[in-house]
Amino acid sequence: MLANTPKPPYYSVIFASEKVEVTAKNDAYDIMASQMLDLAANQPGYLGVETVANELGEGITVSYWQSLETIEAWRDQADHKVAQKLGKEVWYKRYALRIAKVEKAYEFERD
Amino acid sequence: MLANTPKPPYYSVIFASEKVEVTAKNDAYDIMASQMLDLAANQPGYLGVETVANELGEGITVSYWQSLETIEAWRDQADHKVAQKLGKEVWYKRYALRIAKVEKAYEFERD
Repeated sequence: MLANTPKPPYYSVIFASEKVEVTAKNDAYDIMASQMLDLAANQPGYLGVETVANELGEGITVSYWQSLETIEAWRDQADHKVAQKLGKEVWYKRYALRIAKVEKAYEFERD
Repeated sequence: MLANTPKPPYYSVIFASEKVEVTAKNDAYDIMASQMLDLAANQPGYLGVETVANELGEGITVSYWQSLETIEAWRDQADHKVAQKLGKEVWYKRYALRIAKVEKAYEFERD
């Protein structure tokens, strides 16, 4: 689940969210989330993604991008805008989204 | 689970990890992880944390800090160094750690 990113600098979008319905499994959400990951991966400037969700409906998704411009293009992508609207109107209780410039990166992998 | 951070700019540490043992519940790990969150919260420059883990042993923890200097002080904190060593020697299969400067932030909360 780790993103194989190039040497910094590059940009990250840190998206932390809490869903409204924490008990009911929401198939529509899962399908849309999966589609958004596929779609993002085909956007210009996409470098990778790391995403983890738990059974309480909490999730963190960090996507990595070449530049602020490519993040803006992804934000404005038509299908993504539909997903954002559904997220606000139906799925999320709350979320935080941060755009951050990656300056340093380290990796560890067991032998 | 969202961090209540001040206006940007500030710094983030994005830590994405995969544990070695994905099936066995590891009490020692959970205790140490919880202690590290408490300890971080008492470090100078700490602004907040967002953390999610799943049942596969995957986790993302993003902590927020006032400056690179306060991140370095946390990295070098004695008890934290013990935890880092245990992480590499016992718990983690692999991880990625990125330091990124938060430039923009947005929040959504349902009425």
